[in-house]
Amino acid sequence: MSYRNPLPTVDVLIELDGRPGTLVFIERGHEPHGWALPGGFVDAGETVADAAIREAKEETGLDVELVELFHVYSDPARDPRRHTLSVVFIARATGEPVGDDDATRADVAPADAPPGALVFDHATIVSDYLTYKRTGQRPPPRR
Amino acid sequence: MSYRNPLPTVDVLIELDGRPGTLVFIERGHEPHGWALPGGFVDAGETVADAAIREAKEETGLDVELVELFHVYSDPARDPRRHTLSVVFIARATGEPVGDDDATRADVAPADAPPGALVFDHATIVSDYLTYKRTGQRPPPRR
Repeated sequence: MSYRNPLPTVDVLIELDGRPGTLVFIERGHEPHGWALPGGFVDAGETVADAAIREAKEETGLDVELVELFHVYSDPARDPRRHTLSVVFIARATGEPVGDDDATRADVAPADAPPGALVFDHATIVSDYLTYKRTGQRPPPRR
Repeated sequence: MSYRNPLPTVDVLIELDGRPGTLVFIERGHEPHGWALPGGFVDAGETVADAAIREAKEETGLDVELVELFHVYSDPARDPRRHTLSVVFIARATGEPVGDDDATRADVAPADAPPGALVFDHATIVSDYLTYKRTGQRPPPRR
């Protein structure tokens, strides 16, 4: 079966209780290497909400509560390997993240100062998130 | 290649200039038959915004301007054929819709009184949209 649609993924902006202004970032264990928001592919038979909760748990050990669906990112160039689209949630959690599964490390850092360069379009996602937190303005539809 | 992810689609809530409270609905030419919001599959290499604009044009003849990304629907049971997820936009347009391509008919009707029974989870989408217009509250993440 030939495949001609973008692959759906999820990413999660995790706010930790008691640590305002920070987000959870993970260091990727696979190519492309670098830092990223926790996330991964949506499985068939799974809602995007379930996928976000599952991926957050697998990569950081955190049990997240989803606060809201933030936006969808689908630029064909966002992943150098193939066309993916990402449904991004804002979530909250308590505790300390621990990198696991596809993440070699997990870290908590100010949203505007990640522990390292972000891969994919995650710098755009975090920038949009900071704008949203500051102004209430969601990202516009981008062609 | 075996396929184990939901297939991404788009749907569009089209508000027509000068006709407040209404939406554009189409009658489907393929199974499952019934009425629906204009929409369809996202192609590889295409953003979800481009897919929404393309599908609206193909099925209604309207050149829509996307206002905002509304929500994502991904219940595995939302399409009886296979698991899809839909990225839903709110858009506006001017003119009279004309059914074409996969739509045998297009019609303008009050959002709370579609021309016929809605297929998939489109009744939920329209209900969420009405709540949003009335209260400003977006749909919560649903597992």
